[in-house]
Amino acid sequence: MSVLDQAKARDAADPLRGYREQFDLPDGVVYLDGNSLGALPKRTRERLKDVVDQEWGEGLIRSWNTADWIGAPQRIGGKIAPLIGAQPDEVIACDSVSVNLTKLIGAALKMRTGRTVILSEPGNFPTDLYMIQGLAGQGLAGQGGAGKGGAGQGGAEQRLVHRDQIMGALDEDVALLMLTHVHYKTGAMFDMEALTKAAHDAGALVLWDLSHSGGAVPVDLNACGADFAVGCGYKYLNGGPGAPAYAYVAQRHHQTFQQPITGWMGHARPFAFLDEYEPAAGVTRMLAGTPPILAMAALESGVELIAEIGMEPLVTKSRALSEFFRAAMAQHCPQMEPVSPADPAQRGSQLSYYHPEAYAICQALIARGIIGDFRDPDVLRFGFAPAYVSFEDAAVTVAELADILEANAWDKPEFKQRAAVT
Amino acid sequence: MSVLDQAKARDAADPLRGYREQFDLPDGVVYLDGNSLGALPKRTRERLKDVVDQEWGEGLIRSWNTADWIGAPQRIGGKIAPLIGAQPDEVIACDSVSVNLTKLIGAALKMRTGRTVILSEPGNFPTDLYMIQGLAGQGLAGQGGAGKGGAGQGGAEQRLVHRDQIMGALDEDVALLMLTHVHYKTGAMFDMEALTKAAHDAGALVLWDLSHSGGAVPVDLNACGADFAVGCGYKYLNGGPGAPAYAYVAQRHHQTFQQPITGWMGHARPFAFLDEYEPAAGVTRMLAGTPPILAMAALESGVELIAEIGMEPLVTKSRALSEFFRAAMAQHCPQMEPVSPADPAQRGSQLSYYHPEAYAICQALIARGIIGDFRDPDVLRFGFAPAYVSFEDAAVTVAELADILEANAWDKPEFKQRAAVT
Repeated sequence: MSVLDQAKARDAADPLRGYREQFDLPDGVVYLDGNSLGALPKRTRERLKDVVDQEWGEGLIRSWNTADWIGAPQRIGGKIAPLIGAQPDEVIACDSVSVNLTKLIGAALKMRTGRTVILSEPGNFPTDLYMIQGLAGQGLAGQGGAGKGGAGQGGAEQRLVHRDQIMGALDEDVALLMLTHVHYKTGAMFDMEALTKAAHDAGALVLWDLSHSGGAVPVDLNACGADFAVGCGYKYLNGGPGAPAYAYVAQRHHQTFQQPITGWMGHARPFAFLDEYEPAAGVTRMLAGTPPILAMAALESGVELIAEIGMEPLVTKSRALSEFFRAAMAQHCPQMEPVSPADPAQRGSQLSYYHPEAYAICQALIARGIIGDFRDPDVLRFGFAPAYVSFEDAAVTVAELADILEANAWDKPEFKQRAAVT
Repeated sequence: MSVLDQAKARDAADPLRGYREQFDLPDGVVYLDGNSLGALPKRTRERLKDVVDQEWGEGLIRSWNTADWIGAPQRIGGKIAPLIGAQPDEVIACDSVSVNLTKLIGAALKMRTGRTVILSEPGNFPTDLYMIQGLAGQGLAGQGGAGKGGAGQGGAEQRLVHRDQIMGALDEDVALLMLTHVHYKTGAMFDMEALTKAAHDAGALVLWDLSHSGGAVPVDLNACGADFAVGCGYKYLNGGPGAPAYAYVAQRHHQTFQQPITGWMGHARPFAFLDEYEPAAGVTRMLAGTPPILAMAALESGVELIAEIGMEPLVTKSRALSEFFRAAMAQHCPQMEPVSPADPAQRGSQLSYYHPEAYAICQALIARGIIGDFRDPDVLRFGFAPAYVSFEDAAVTVAELADILEANAWDKPEFKQRAAVT
């Protein structure tokens, strides 16, 4: 049986096959980049139309109450919570991953007085490292209050060690271990439970970046005892381009944690308009400014769809799909060198491959309607968003890629010209 | 001639009367709360439908390039710039006012080493003060790096003095004078030029919060020599509920300013995925995370409409409209005590009134389809968004309010019951 026939048989037996119809995927496109920007749920079109025409246009300012805009960050957080093993009151949707990292690094430093090190790995997603550097006052990125002494002084110090050496680097100077659970480029997944325990044994707190995890792989923050987490709304949660992010704070820290971006929406009584900041109860004090309601509505719609499907069937499908692709690639595209772990339980919902011409190959695939993505300098990345990617998508991709490689069809000037966003 | 007849004559002669049709205002509603949430431009419905269906749904990840999502913050900033007397490369649309305040307070402290005081006024919009407190590590809101020494230590110190005493409080400890140009509650407007000059003479920098100014009153940041500014997208710019904010950094600081929330979108080469932060050129380094494209698109649409009308006719109309309202109120509602300056050149596009029962009166007006708003504890605020508010709106409001006051029609339990957002 050909790979394509096998794929069709697998699709016919897929319990999630009906959900593909819930997304507005363009004709003639195979979309394997849901780990960069999730597809458009059809219901989101309707939801946004309602928010714009009815809630904004008709309701105007009244909709803060009547449409409960004011409760959106907590309400959406509560819907994300079961996807990541959290309680509903531990998660809130707000700001970007970057801004939420600054808040939680700041919170961790306040909770671990006398410790200054933020431990992470080189090659972590850049914004995670840049946020440490901003608070450390290093380089050109100085934190106002802390940075007056210049580089290397102030309250935060970045320590980066290879992922195999993290356990050994957890000493009495480490305030926070901050890692991305699933690596954006390789797809390699950390052992959240073991690393959280090791950090706690060393007296440190832990912050997990779930950007490539939430909605795609099993996450149980509560069972692991994690302190903090952040995650992305626009990948597997299908919240729309640049959707608001989410943040998790374990209940045991709700009474005491303090974050530095103390905006009015995180105040205990924002509409009393008091001069003195008084933090709201619990995770609400993570809020800073007024939430972007249009973007929040799209995020909520995307989250609801993923929550309806449920994490267990999504994880099962993700693993089956990526294993199917991995086997077909090994057989038909041996020129592509696997980057991601072979064990599906040790990786995210993606498979990455090295090739010196990865950029041009990615463009050649796009020209054939197959959208994966490229990560500098030489990685081709295929994401398997289990809610809408089919086995046939995987089979078609392998067949076209085999053809491109065999014919050197990537070797054209138009495929080598870099775009602004790669 | 009755007030209503006068109003109809003024509307007939209003050169901006045609623009009201560009907004989707509900039937039977007089909307005087555009200073809290601007109305829905009809074109924004179309624009959002296109962004959702075509750019996200069809274009998917490709739209970062093909629809220039990646350039949205700078592009929208460039369209806001002429409304506030700035150069196109001095303004960027991003994050919230709150988050942008943290960035710019941090930047100012880095630029004025040895000075620690942020000078503002009591009763400023709360989030502005809370942002100082967050960085100061005061109360429960501690900045990680700076806050280790506890309250009152660290790099920032809040100093609040009455607005009449600001000039005298500008001493050698002041790093930054941070004021809201038009006061959210009273509508009183600061003399931007004189205060900026006084701050500079004292060696301090200046940050203006233009939330209640941009799109409503004359602002010339360049002529005043302002260093920094922030402003709100969802009031007079009609960018939608919780629209992204904007930030201004004067060109002369572009080479040197450093802000603490150093996300990947503010990196010189974000898609090189480097471990070391290197700030992008100019105002782009204000960016942190991925911009919320749906919310940005609505903001851009709203800004374009205001820019088409132009600031001069908007200011002329705003002043004529509020003066008409003020005169009618003095005649027909003498029970309402004026709060805002009588000179239209010394106030924003709003008029506020004290009344001990302001909350219930506001609710009674809403029950009659007239939406103003209430600010704790006893202020009723009427905003005159000049792009869509008519003289007839003003006349109807005064007539209904006179009737409510005369009949004590506000004195009902349902009007006294406080909602979540007031």
